[in-house]
Amino acid sequence: MPETKDEERSSRRTFMALTAAIGGLAACESGTEAPVAGGPRHLGSTISPYSERSKYETTTRFMPATKTPEQASSRTPLQELQGIITPSGLHFERHHAGIPDIDPVNHELLVHGLVDRPTIFTMDDLKRLPSVSVVRFVECSGNGGSEWTAPGSTTAQLAHGLASCSEWTGVPLRVVLEELGVQPEGRWIYAEGADACLMARSVPIEKAMDDALLAYAQNGDALRPAQGYPLRLLLPGYEGNTNVKWLHVIKVTDQPMMTRDETSKYTDLLPDGKARQFTFDLDAKSLITSPSGGQKIADLGFVEIRGLAWSGRGLIERVEVSVDGGETWADAELEGPLHPKAFTRFRLPWHWDGSTAVLLSRATDETGYLQPTVDQLIEARGKNSNYHNNSQKSWTIAADGSVSNA
Amino acid sequence: MPETKDEERSSRRTFMALTAAIGGLAACESGTEAPVAGGPRHLGSTISPYSERSKYETTTRFMPATKTPEQASSRTPLQELQGIITPSGLHFERHHAGIPDIDPVNHELLVHGLVDRPTIFTMDDLKRLPSVSVVRFVECSGNGGSEWTAPGSTTAQLAHGLASCSEWTGVPLRVVLEELGVQPEGRWIYAEGADACLMARSVPIEKAMDDALLAYAQNGDALRPAQGYPLRLLLPGYEGNTNVKWLHVIKVTDQPMMTRDETSKYTDLLPDGKARQFTFDLDAKSLITSPSGGQKIADLGFVEIRGLAWSGRGLIERVEVSVDGGETWADAELEGPLHPKAFTRFRLPWHWDGSTAVLLSRATDETGYLQPTVDQLIEARGKNSNYHNNSQKSWTIAADGSVSNA
Repeated sequence: MPETKDEERSSRRTFMALTAAIGGLAACESGTEAPVAGGPRHLGSTISPYSERSKYETTTRFMPATKTPEQASSRTPLQELQGIITPSGLHFERHHAGIPDIDPVNHELLVHGLVDRPTIFTMDDLKRLPSVSVVRFVECSGNGGSEWTAPGSTTAQLAHGLASCSEWTGVPLRVVLEELGVQPEGRWIYAEGADACLMARSVPIEKAMDDALLAYAQNGDALRPAQGYPLRLLLPGYEGNTNVKWLHVIKVTDQPMMTRDETSKYTDLLPDGKARQFTFDLDAKSLITSPSGGQKIADLGFVEIRGLAWSGRGLIERVEVSVDGGETWADAELEGPLHPKAFTRFRLPWHWDGSTAVLLSRATDETGYLQPTVDQLIEARGKNSNYHNNSQKSWTIAADGSVSNA
Repeated sequence: MPETKDEERSSRRTFMALTAAIGGLAACESGTEAPVAGGPRHLGSTISPYSERSKYETTTRFMPATKTPEQASSRTPLQELQGIITPSGLHFERHHAGIPDIDPVNHELLVHGLVDRPTIFTMDDLKRLPSVSVVRFVECSGNGGSEWTAPGSTTAQLAHGLASCSEWTGVPLRVVLEELGVQPEGRWIYAEGADACLMARSVPIEKAMDDALLAYAQNGDALRPAQGYPLRLLLPGYEGNTNVKWLHVIKVTDQPMMTRDETSKYTDLLPDGKARQFTFDLDAKSLITSPSGGQKIADLGFVEIRGLAWSGRGLIERVEVSVDGGETWADAELEGPLHPKAFTRFRLPWHWDGSTAVLLSRATDETGYLQPTVDQLIEARGKNSNYHNNSQKSWTIAADGSVSNA
């Protein structure tokens, strides 16, 4: 089995494995003056107000073929990304009526309903209030839906790319609600977006008073329009749809408003014909991003198995990796500092000997919850709904090193 | 003095202050059905492969007027950013011969000199090796140079915008050097970039074997060309110039190579005519980003003082803020989890009563080092060199709320 501890990773044994990995490299004669590696020798381009990506970087979000690209989703290329931050331009999208074009000078947030002092906030008003910055994931509850009964997607992006992670900044909703005075009968909030369909969800007041955020910045900068510019509701650990973008109304109510997206959509139909409703929390999940479907291991020898784990219920406590289809497991290294309800990067050194192999991972979060197998998930919830698929994901490695979703 | 503890921030006293801050807002009649706030009502734009910023977001890097924009610098708009992550497109630049256009397929890193097995690595080779992701700042040692003797820059961006912070991913240089076998007489490395001037620096072997990184990713995505695409040397806490971009050669040597940028540049001339050389470490520093020069406090009442602190020697342990020009100090709240050698966001609630005020901050790092006043810095190092200005920065607030660098 692979080594897992820091001290072992830096031992000669690991280096022997690395030697194998880079055994095919261009080694120079020791002692000779090696030629300087290539590179341009003419004056380069100039400083600029804003840098774009290299023209050689062509990895983008995946857009499914659709006749309704305003009511559609795009997926983050998780297998191409490093660390835990998703670039804002590559954060997954799920829009129900397209991306509105909002001038922040004219944008207002109305907070009303069962509060003592209903109030309209401008963006300047909100930015003046106490703020926090947190690293948190957002995941569509439909993420992995295509994997529910049979693995059909070829890559990590296609299978589980409706999840991303950013540093978000905004005003704790609690600060605003406490300031305006929530009345005793106020048990829910209704949050509505300013897109054409007025996408809206109901959220328990306990969540609103816990870690809900009126977020106006993402990864240092203002939100991108596709992420709700100039204001979105961030509900850490809750299913993505509740993180209402282009937020313009919050109403404190005594009951949920039974909006379209919490009745006909985003409910989980069980085998007995009943449906689970308001299944907000996203349970612990993990995904090996490298090697993953569509990639190929170049050579025998050292391979660093890399992946992401996250839980809507707090910190990731443990990620185990199997290279034999779940027969045996090894603890992966978790990269700190850890953030609750955020992507957690895990890594495990592995020596690939050229055999076929089945890789998979399973996460445990701080509540002690262990990510289930897909069979366990189907046993508990049936096959009527494809929301909330957090089951273990496997990748199959063929003898030629190619990786597939088998 | 302002309140500083969490429990006090959420007390009614703080909310009373907030009430004052939002006293001028549009309050609705309690109990009435308030009108829905404005917003577009037509179908928005579609999903896309990659999101850009909103057209209403015009904050960019500052570019000084220059006839040599290939040999120049641009500055990060620190006063407009939130959290600790600098968007890759807004990371400051300092180029000596422009930005080379490098196809990563053709890019190679030669590691030679006093190693047992000189080797050429392709980018694919490097990406296969063990990796780490770390949040770290990069700062030009010339940052704040204009503030050395007299505050001349009107904004935080102009005064101290040659500093940025990202999540970087790459291969620990130690892994490569241990694999290739550093010979006993190897005491330094020479790192060279593939830009037209072959910008190069010498670095002690101890740093190379400590936390030096062969970085290929920034904030999840590949490096931007302006940050060294496809490979840069990251030397956490060392002056920015040593973090060689477009890295293509590392040579292990027995002594420093005395390159241009460690002899005629990036040395600190002292009053006695001697110069400090190889002053790599960036000492603890802090900067209030809001309210800061060029901004204006809108109203009397609640103001959240926000800023950034960082140290090249490890964690920030404490940030103190003064609103009376340094007479008295209050501890700001540091936002965790903390990263060593990274931006640390600090915040302090304040009630502005309309008086003129002088704001400043001072950071203490985990070594116990306290950020000096500019007078202390000049007393120690004179006025011949304007590198390494980490002195306390003040902003003056006038009775009309306008903030200046006085």
